[in-house]
Amino acid sequence: MNDPKIRRFVLAALLAVVLVLPASSDEGMWLFNKPPKDILQKKYGFTVTPEFMDHLRLASISFGGASGSFVSPEGLVLTNHHVGRGAVQNLSTKDRDLMKTGFYARTQAEELKVPGMELRVLIGIADVTDKVLGAEKPGTTPVEAADARQKVIAALENEAAGTAGMRGTVVTLYSGGMYHLYTYKLYDDVRLVFAPEYLVAFFGGDQDNFTYPRYDLDITLFRIYENGRPFKSDNYIKWSTTGVREGDLVLCSGHPGSTGRLLTMGQLEFLRDTSYPFNIANLKRRQAYMHAYAAQGEEQSRIAMRNLFGIENSLKATIGYQSGLLDEKLLAKKLREEQSLRAQVAKSTDLEKAYGPAWDEIAAAEKAYASFFKPLAFFERANGFYTTYFTMARTIVRMAMEKPKPNADRLREFRDASLPSVERGLLSPAPIYDDFEVVKLGDSLAQLQEELPDMMEVRWILGGRSPQDVARDLIAGTKLKDIDARKKLLDGGLTAVYQSQDPMIKLALLVDPVSRGLRARYEDQVDAVETRNGTRIAQAMFKLEGTSIPPDATGTLRLSFGAVKGYVENGRKVAFQTTFAGLYDKSAKAGNKDPYELPARFITKKPAVNLATPVDFVSTADSIGGNSGSPLVNRKGEFVGVLFDGNIQSLPTRFVYEDTISRSVMVHGQGIIEALLKIYDAKPLVDEILGRK
Amino acid sequence: MNDPKIRRFVLAALLAVVLVLPASSDEGMWLFNKPPKDILQKKYGFTVTPEFMDHLRLASISFGGASGSFVSPEGLVLTNHHVGRGAVQNLSTKDRDLMKTGFYARTQAEELKVPGMELRVLIGIADVTDKVLGAEKPGTTPVEAADARQKVIAALENEAAGTAGMRGTVVTLYSGGMYHLYTYKLYDDVRLVFAPEYLVAFFGGDQDNFTYPRYDLDITLFRIYENGRPFKSDNYIKWSTTGVREGDLVLCSGHPGSTGRLLTMGQLEFLRDTSYPFNIANLKRRQAYMHAYAAQGEEQSRIAMRNLFGIENSLKATIGYQSGLLDEKLLAKKLREEQSLRAQVAKSTDLEKAYGPAWDEIAAAEKAYASFFKPLAFFERANGFYTTYFTMARTIVRMAMEKPKPNADRLREFRDASLPSVERGLLSPAPIYDDFEVVKLGDSLAQLQEELPDMMEVRWILGGRSPQDVARDLIAGTKLKDIDARKKLLDGGLTAVYQSQDPMIKLALLVDPVSRGLRARYEDQVDAVETRNGTRIAQAMFKLEGTSIPPDATGTLRLSFGAVKGYVENGRKVAFQTTFAGLYDKSAKAGNKDPYELPARFITKKPAVNLATPVDFVSTADSIGGNSGSPLVNRKGEFVGVLFDGNIQSLPTRFVYEDTISRSVMVHGQGIIEALLKIYDAKPLVDEILGRK
Repeated sequence: MNDPKIRRFVLAALLAVVLVLPASSDEGMWLFNKPPKDILQKKYGFTVTPEFMDHLRLASISFGGASGSFVSPEGLVLTNHHVGRGAVQNLSTKDRDLMKTGFYARTQAEELKVPGMELRVLIGIADVTDKVLGAEKPGTTPVEAADARQKVIAALENEAAGTAGMRGTVVTLYSGGMYHLYTYKLYDDVRLVFAPEYLVAFFGGDQDNFTYPRYDLDITLFRIYENGRPFKSDNYIKWSTTGVREGDLVLCSGHPGSTGRLLTMGQLEFLRDTSYPFNIANLKRRQAYMHAYAAQGEEQSRIAMRNLFGIENSLKATIGYQSGLLDEKLLAKKLREEQSLRAQVAKSTDLEKAYGPAWDEIAAAEKAYASFFKPLAFFERANGFYTTYFTMARTIVRMAMEKPKPNADRLREFRDASLPSVERGLLSPAPIYDDFEVVKLGDSLAQLQEELPDMMEVRWILGGRSPQDVARDLIAGTKLKDIDARKKLLDGGLTAVYQSQDPMIKLALLVDPVSRGLRARYEDQVDAVETRNGTRIAQAMFKLEGTSIPPDATGTLRLSFGAVKGYVENGRKVAFQTTFAGLYDKSAKAGNKDPYELPARFITKKPAVNLATPVDFVSTADSIGGNSGSPLVNRKGEFVGVLFDGNIQSLPTRFVYEDTISRSVMVHGQGIIEALLKIYDAKPLVDEILGRK
Repeated sequence: MNDPKIRRFVLAALLAVVLVLPASSDEGMWLFNKPPKDILQKKYGFTVTPEFMDHLRLASISFGGASGSFVSPEGLVLTNHHVGRGAVQNLSTKDRDLMKTGFYARTQAEELKVPGMELRVLIGIADVTDKVLGAEKPGTTPVEAADARQKVIAALENEAAGTAGMRGTVVTLYSGGMYHLYTYKLYDDVRLVFAPEYLVAFFGGDQDNFTYPRYDLDITLFRIYENGRPFKSDNYIKWSTTGVREGDLVLCSGHPGSTGRLLTMGQLEFLRDTSYPFNIANLKRRQAYMHAYAAQGEEQSRIAMRNLFGIENSLKATIGYQSGLLDEKLLAKKLREEQSLRAQVAKSTDLEKAYGPAWDEIAAAEKAYASFFKPLAFFERANGFYTTYFTMARTIVRMAMEKPKPNADRLREFRDASLPSVERGLLSPAPIYDDFEVVKLGDSLAQLQEELPDMMEVRWILGGRSPQDVARDLIAGTKLKDIDARKKLLDGGLTAVYQSQDPMIKLALLVDPVSRGLRARYEDQVDAVETRNGTRIAQAMFKLEGTSIPPDATGTLRLSFGAVKGYVENGRKVAFQTTFAGLYDKSAKAGNKDPYELPARFITKKPAVNLATPVDFVSTADSIGGNSGSPLVNRKGEFVGVLFDGNIQSLPTRFVYEDTISRSVMVHGQGIIEALLKIYDAKPLVDEILGRK
């Protein structure tokens, strides 16, 4: 084995096994400053130019956990209905339920300003890896190193924020192997232009969520204003007039939230054995009591729907992810990959010394994590206090505590760069329904009592009373429903908070110390260890492989690509697109009943609709939660669809990509035009989109 | 009245009424840098030299709330037994009760190091009034002004602390009219040399406390060490060999805690109607349950005595102060004085504009104060959590919170200058008795429940359980009895505190926000207003009167003076001194029973004692709580006695001085020598004191 030629051969063989080379597949959520040029050139004969990437980036919009894009030179923004749902619900009242009726502003004057919404466009990317990693002194503990990095990161973010309406965020890539500074332009005057009825936006409901074939018109249109006028820009995506054919290359620009393809076995086992089981049980519990609440009446149903979609969506997704981790083959593959990489590292004394202990150190950290995951989830992550009021109270309390500290010493979410958004969120006039909050808080307190009965804080909060009674008193007593009360506390700082008689503020103060203790434990014993060792593993990969494998998703802008393509499921061919004919057919077969009921408008306008027009389609383009609302463009950079889902087989791709049956699901650009024109009589909107205006 | 001559006449007449000119009496606790030279010269023909003052200052010792002095060139320190009591008790155990047996170290090797004791000597005084008041910007609110002053004060104190073992403290005089920076040298190696038996130190017990004639040998001797050796210095007080005769001038150097002679009517009414009634009721309650505890057995009695003396002493003192405020004549005199000063101010448009509103603003602040006095007393002042463990827990919690802040932003007691003392106190190995702590905490929680049942924090803490059960669990659960546990929390900072499972730490965290809120309310709405307006009143006085009236006591070093002098009480003459004959007689008449029981040694050694030797004596020298342990010197600066009490008539002098029947009470220097030689066989100690060694 000491023959160098043999060594090289073994190494090459190992590499072939270890690293799934992306060239062979459509895998990858690529950094915008490192697009997969060679792959696109080789596999699709497509040449990526800097102009193409810049234009697509500036036309892409972050919805904070989801995606969207400019689709007109007048600030018109397209995303999914389920992304815009919060806005639609916040603009609804008991007597004007826009979820039910849909909404269309025929003129700009009719557009509805959305409370508390903030959109962002990524205007700059800079590699700051050397600066951030340069802050670590050799021989420091993971916690000390994390503190040193955080100081540099805070300073970089502060510098980037500079003028009002800007935001700098340092993004940690490859678990700490790379740091990029992203600079955003912020937009906070966002108005609702168009939303279809919930029935057709979420046609098939929770039952069809994460499945295909689908027929959903899952879209919403907003308009960004600046200084009271529609925001004008050339950085928008022109609408394709030709649509897509099977086999076409499509490119997707969006904000995938997180993937776990580079996680170690220790991390995967933690998810499988601790985190996912907790989350699934918790979501099922919420789902159950919210259905019960919704069943009490129409208004209760409207209110519960605000949370129910998100819960059921997360639940289905998490069950899908977990199915991947429970799949022995998938896990065996991950194990082989990890073992091979570790074997490669072990071949070299230098590599072994520098990177060898990384996996075991992470595994030990995950064990520690599991030991306090439950109190962390209930306290710091507030699962024990599931009400909007508590979220507000905690924000007020922590804002008051953090703001006086030097920027770099604050909890990350209260750094200067984030404060304007935090304040905007806190002072949002979005409605809150006390009855519903009592149900949510009551059940989460009950869970707290069941799961952590011996914690002193739990005994204090409940004091032998029923969780429901405690919840009722807290919700009845809080004045935080009043925006002025929130503003007063925000302005009054710590003294006002300490002097507040508001029971929710008092609750937030009571749980703050133990919550911070748990957070520190997580940051010190888990996060810092994961980052230090994730960095080592990434550096080992960079040494052995370069950076040909894109980093795991981080909620920031990424480019993915793929072919428009059907697939075969259980021996049956699934077509690459669906049509209006299919939509009407599906509804009719179900007797036009829930969840396949169509809005009245769809029935009355049916004669006008060209039933052959495609509604939804699928592609192999890599995506995950957060990509909702992502525009898909063709080779010319033209809009062909908006991503709104993945099929059920796509869920395990969180851990291992595959493109045989895993698909992203889009609303078709032509379907959108057909519906707007024929069903919604929205010709002015279509004219704007198609540039006929 | 516009004739200037008449105006001047009226002014002069008013002044004569308003301001009790000290020249006519022995009133005054004088600043060491502004001694009453003229008065002493005029009334006693005594010339005060700078050398005299410097020597007396450097020979005087602050016991932190009490006084003492160097009495030998080898670091021997004399104070009262009741001042050294905590040390004597902390050095006692169940099997070695030094309170009962007394203690005498025949050699330096036998001297016992006192845990946690810190003594100070005032080595410098500087007037920083201009710097502190110069920090206030014109037109700021009282709170802003207070913040600005605090920043300057913190900086001055920090600068003065300089080297280790030093401490700088800015003292607020005349309620803010004057600021002096006091620099102290600290001594923390203090050893017990001699203590008599409790029976003779506190002969007559609570019954005779604050009365005269008295026969108490209320002394204790310590020795200060530096670098492991007795501290050598020429700044000690030589012992008088001649004693005192009636009419002799005596000078007293000590640390009077606080007086209220310059308080406004608003402040006096607050004390009378709110503060004193609360304190008296609270102390009576503690007294009652401690007697009940003491009655359970000898060991319980020993333990309860630790707190009982202080409680009964405070109770008697407070009742005495209150008797002054309930005396209509006294209050009418204060009202006349205030009205006259206000009238003088009102005569001048300029004075009225600058100082006129001061009294009403203070009165309004006192009204506000009364409205939240109770929660303030129970929470921030910890009357609801009366256990040593809570004091420790709060110190640990607040130290962790305050230490990371910039020095000037911290709660005052956690500024850099104070931290070493705070830490030393926290890590003191002084014993704690859990049974007793349960009783104390249980009753204070019960009071909390009775007085503030609707406060959310009270409901949380008690949660429907009995205060006794809650107290028992808290005391049983806390690990703070272990010094290492305290040290670990102290070193671990806020993260360790937040992660602590200690129930007492959790309790301190729970009550911290509301406590701080109340403290801020007090500081902003009361203290800042009192200071701003106290400053105005002082400045008005300075303008009209100069600084011929000394400031109220502030716990810092002051000089007072007076004559050795008996008095007439209810028509009966009370002699200026008592003798050993009187001591034995009093005990015999009471059948040598409690509280007039004498230690066995006194009986067996009686034949050797010169019964004509004086034991205690009285003087008109001005004093108040905090003066305990003050040395009294004659014209030559020689030690003639150590102050240990005032008679009952002296208590209302807190508000108005008088010297007809009000007296300070001293142990006589010759009585001390007689007892040490004849009863305690302490010839080496006497030789050291008398310089025969």
